[in-house]
Amino acid sequence: MTDAAKLPGISWLAADWGTSSLRVWAIDGSGRVIASATSGRGMGSLTSEEYEVAFLELAGDWLPQEPTGRIPVLVCGMAGAKQGWQEAGYSQVPCPPVDPVALTRVRVQDPRLDVFIVPGICQLEPPDVMRGEETQLAGLTASGILDGTVCMPGTHSKWVRLAGGRVEAFATFMTGELFAAITQHTILRHSLSEGSSFDSKAFLGGVGQGLEGSSALAGNLFSIRASGLLGQDGGDAASRISGLLVGTELAANQALWREGEAHLVGDSRLVENYALAIRTVGGRPVVHDGEALVLAGLKQVRSAMLENAA
Amino acid sequence: MTDAAKLPGISWLAADWGTSSLRVWAIDGSGRVIASATSGRGMGSLTSEEYEVAFLELAGDWLPQEPTGRIPVLVCGMAGAKQGWQEAGYSQVPCPPVDPVALTRVRVQDPRLDVFIVPGICQLEPPDVMRGEETQLAGLTASGILDGTVCMPGTHSKWVRLAGGRVEAFATFMTGELFAAITQHTILRHSLSEGSSFDSKAFLGGVGQGLEGSSALAGNLFSIRASGLLGQDGGDAASRISGLLVGTELAANQALWREGEAHLVGDSRLVENYALAIRTVGGRPVVHDGEALVLAGLKQVRSAMLENAA
Repeated sequence: MTDAAKLPGISWLAADWGTSSLRVWAIDGSGRVIASATSGRGMGSLTSEEYEVAFLELAGDWLPQEPTGRIPVLVCGMAGAKQGWQEAGYSQVPCPPVDPVALTRVRVQDPRLDVFIVPGICQLEPPDVMRGEETQLAGLTASGILDGTVCMPGTHSKWVRLAGGRVEAFATFMTGELFAAITQHTILRHSLSEGSSFDSKAFLGGVGQGLEGSSALAGNLFSIRASGLLGQDGGDAASRISGLLVGTELAANQALWREGEAHLVGDSRLVENYALAIRTVGGRPVVHDGEALVLAGLKQVRSAMLENAA
Repeated sequence: MTDAAKLPGISWLAADWGTSSLRVWAIDGSGRVIASATSGRGMGSLTSEEYEVAFLELAGDWLPQEPTGRIPVLVCGMAGAKQGWQEAGYSQVPCPPVDPVALTRVRVQDPRLDVFIVPGICQLEPPDVMRGEETQLAGLTASGILDGTVCMPGTHSKWVRLAGGRVEAFATFMTGELFAAITQHTILRHSLSEGSSFDSKAFLGGVGQGLEGSSALAGNLFSIRASGLLGQDGGDAASRISGLLVGTELAANQALWREGEAHLVGDSRLVENYALAIRTVGGRPVVHDGEALVLAGLKQVRSAMLENAA
């Protein structure tokens, strides 16, 4: 099969399909990445019928022109949501990050593809869901981190409790989305400086304020506006707002990050800010690359599939 | 002077000029309202040159056609902001709600008008400002309420500490604006029901959750989304979001409303919700009509002006 591929040696494909982007890796028989590509065609801009076309636009050139067998494609992320490619369901905590027998096989037109979507994870009390992060957690447990706290900063930050390589419990914080809504759609947009860059002093001032007086978030936010009106210099407003929100998130998760290392997973810049905040308030952050962990998680799922098939 | 007015008996005019609306009252020599009118031409839609025209559009018909003397106009609210009719400055806490000698006289073209704007109040630590509410506080103190806690729900809710008829300290919470940004500009907009009405059970559920776990606001918000995805019925989402935000505001102000009556001032519907929340968690709300208090406050300022002139 792989000999006929335009990309010689291709064994299977890994895909991280989020709300706003798609990333695909071509992997050879020894687990090496031999090609990768990214597009902006995320779940937010696609109907379920458009997924296969969007996938082939990005990775089609790697495939053999004549079908000689189906190449496995392992997909994680929002492509498994109800409004995605095909609904992939949820595993329920406590559970391993990804259960390889719970993959959802997708109906596709192209005879060269055999597509599987990784399930998300849900929690009934308090109600919560994740999609995509479970695969990063699979990558983390595959690297030997089986216990402790994982913080995955982002639009919807996740705080996860791992025990014995299983996801025990988790909580989602809309910190990134609140930051966007507050800085774009409230009076605080008038407090932002044009083209300002990250101001660690203002950020850490916000973190401290958010951590101490976390219930006063709506009040601390307004004081940013008021200090501007009164001619006080509080530093870059966007950095301070971000700090307030991160500090409030840290206040809600003190029991987790105070007891040991906090494994941070995600986007470099945002993760660096969380690491700075956690270090400054006395915690022990350990930073992990989010993209590398997605790939490691998908490889882990692929290995488990092969073991199950054997 | 007043005999020549088209509205016989007019002695002075009171105006509440906010961000989104203007309300004007014509008052006779014995303090009775003889006419009133409202327009949507608030500070947010006017340049400083347009205020006089907007005022005359609404109240010009009440004035004498031939100038026989200037009719006093007392204005409170955002018309005194930097971007308003003319900047009116701030009194600084601790201070009386309105200092009648600190009024700002506005330069006007029309020889029939003598316009004064009431100053706002500022606080340096923590930085905070108010404009408009100080006049309602003047109305409240004029009614004999000189001490205690005042809560003024709204886009920017104010919590005020009165002592001996003076404003000791206050804090602004962007609760109403956060509600708008969250329900219109985050993923939670997908959780809202079309045409839903206020759901007191969902609201009070949110209040309890916000009051207890106030630092987890960003997490409690996401659980509204997750419970919908998991098919759990949490009641009307907008009511629950509102409850969460109000509960978080109550958590930050426990020291105020737990120690005695909480005087609630403002818009009927919103004030009723705050009263329900405070009563349910064991406080003692007393509801006051916001519009009546603005007018009472402006009358109080007018009396003080006349006393000072005498």
